[in-house]
Amino acid sequence: MAVTLAAPPRLGHVEAASAEVSPGAALAAALHRPVCVLGLGLIGGSLLRAATDAGRDAWGASASSTTVEKARADGYDVADSVADAIARAAARDALVVVAVPMTALDDVLAVVAREAPQCRLTDVTSVKEPVAEAVARRAPATRFVGGHPMTGTEFSGWDAGSLQLFQEKVWVVATDDDIDLDVWVDVVALALACGSTVVPAASDEHDLAVARISHLPHLLAAVLASVGADGGELALALAAGSFTDGTRVAATRPELTAAMCEGNRTALLAGLDDALGRLGAARGSLASTGGLLSTLTAGHGARTDLDEARRHRREVRIDLAGAPADFLDAMRELGRTGGRIIGWTGDALDAVEAALEEE
Amino acid sequence: MAVTLAAPPRLGHVEAASAEVSPGAALAAALHRPVCVLGLGLIGGSLLRAATDAGRDAWGASASSTTVEKARADGYDVADSVADAIARAAARDALVVVAVPMTALDDVLAVVAREAPQCRLTDVTSVKEPVAEAVARRAPATRFVGGHPMTGTEFSGWDAGSLQLFQEKVWVVATDDDIDLDVWVDVVALALACGSTVVPAASDEHDLAVARISHLPHLLAAVLASVGADGGELALALAAGSFTDGTRVAATRPELTAAMCEGNRTALLAGLDDALGRLGAARGSLASTGGLLSTLTAGHGARTDLDEARRHRREVRIDLAGAPADFLDAMRELGRTGGRIIGWTGDALDAVEAALEEE
Repeated sequence: MAVTLAAPPRLGHVEAASAEVSPGAALAAALHRPVCVLGLGLIGGSLLRAATDAGRDAWGASASSTTVEKARADGYDVADSVADAIARAAARDALVVVAVPMTALDDVLAVVAREAPQCRLTDVTSVKEPVAEAVARRAPATRFVGGHPMTGTEFSGWDAGSLQLFQEKVWVVATDDDIDLDVWVDVVALALACGSTVVPAASDEHDLAVARISHLPHLLAAVLASVGADGGELALALAAGSFTDGTRVAATRPELTAAMCEGNRTALLAGLDDALGRLGAARGSLASTGGLLSTLTAGHGARTDLDEARRHRREVRIDLAGAPADFLDAMRELGRTGGRIIGWTGDALDAVEAALEEE
Repeated sequence: MAVTLAAPPRLGHVEAASAEVSPGAALAAALHRPVCVLGLGLIGGSLLRAATDAGRDAWGASASSTTVEKARADGYDVADSVADAIARAAARDALVVVAVPMTALDDVLAVVAREAPQCRLTDVTSVKEPVAEAVARRAPATRFVGGHPMTGTEFSGWDAGSLQLFQEKVWVVATDDDIDLDVWVDVVALALACGSTVVPAASDEHDLAVARISHLPHLLAAVLASVGADGGELALALAAGSFTDGTRVAATRPELTAAMCEGNRTALLAGLDDALGRLGAARGSLASTGGLLSTLTAGHGARTDLDEARRHRREVRIDLAGAPADFLDAMRELGRTGGRIIGWTGDALDAVEAALEEE
């Protein structure tokens, strides 16, 4: 199910502003919000490229001087330091995007808390609850709405980035009850501007889901690669599509995968135990009666359902009038049932245009 | 390591012929050997297309009248029955290729034994020892040399086939001590003509290897697909590259995968236990100290080694003078150390040309 989004109910009431603004003006601000990207690896570097290309005032920062040089040489706006980038974000009311690995998160949040304690903040990290907890601990006054673009490659660093990385991908936007709806709209607008569609999800539901469809696949890929290598050079010489595809993400830097998986330990253990149970049952059946058909038929059905769901996507338009709590509920239910946001309604964009003409 | 192949030592001595023929004439015969394909699914259908395209006199047969009609409509030569196709192969001294699933193997071999009891026979099935045993039981007088093109897709049937399916793929040719070397050359020549390179391997070593790099990946893909589906529609909506690639082959018809895996039970159990051991260790580590780095680093190393091996392939030319036993030993050692046959030496092809001019 795909939906276009009208301006959500509370949009137009900006907490920090002294007066109410029109919904059109508020959405216009979200659509043109400056973007500050902290960390310029595969995801952050791609985001700086995509946001710049989408016409945003966008700048980045990296702790690595080599990365800073490369990004500048490619024509992008990179601040002299992380602190400078954040200070600029505070001055321009930008959306700050944390794009560093989990291991560097606390340090970056400390600088955010110092330079822009109340800024609009999101992230592009894999797990959502641990990041939200770190933000609550380190930068509690920021207006944080987590995000997770479901994209990537097995490569890392600025050079691996691409303008296209978010095109036609899914970008999860955390839709918890305590969020700032204006920043939620900022994050949705950025995701759509980069070419993604948006799946709204509660942080805990997101973490359970990605354990199964992202973290477990990375772990299985690593194990499969090792089992293949145990078969020696003949086995590797015979490796074709099933092995190559099944081990592709094992080429990701293991430190990044480890940080991602370990940061979602409880959810991953549940998914892993599900996998171990199914594999154990298959092993028992293969060793005794020899039958793998029930395991394989279940997997076949699951995979065909996925393909079907991807082919048959209905587009509907949801009426979002109502209280903010209803809106967040409706958004989570949309995500839970496989739906996604694909753009703004014509009405919302008309209001933006009217607001811009009034200026 | 890639090698070009001179005419192997015994080539030129054709058992069935009344007199010795020149090595050039024998290789010429192999390079122009008619091909009879039994079964026109994904692999057999692709083989009929590729062999025809390579200029071979090639015909096929299928038990399905729908398939026969489709293949004929696409312009291919299809016999009226499996028995007719095999009788024609006997008359033309063709290489018969069995391209039916394991479950239909015994029935087809019975017809082969009746219509062409001493024919040149190969197969394109996944496991080599069980097929060799079935041939020894059902069609013991045939000159059988097993084969296994390491290619395929998750689709099946004539419509899924393609002329290109074998291009730049690896084709294993069984290189056991008791084989007929002339037929071994026929199979190698067919694989090369279809655009593949050849890895020579003993049947048992092949079966151990494919359990790890083909059968286990299929089983893991099925389990992963089920674990993902257990996460509900939200999880499937978030599924990106790692899940899509990791479950791709779960879309294969489960009956085909089951027949393939169950036919290689002992070897698959060994590979599966290796995987279960590694996954169990990872689970224990994640649940206690939380560390997945050793599992992920091992997998990363194995996967990078695979990529390296694919990039850095040296081409050498092996001197194959010597007794047939030495030749087979040298071929198996080539495969065991990651080498493959990529073509014929210039000398061998010169001899073919000279022989053809003499005719």
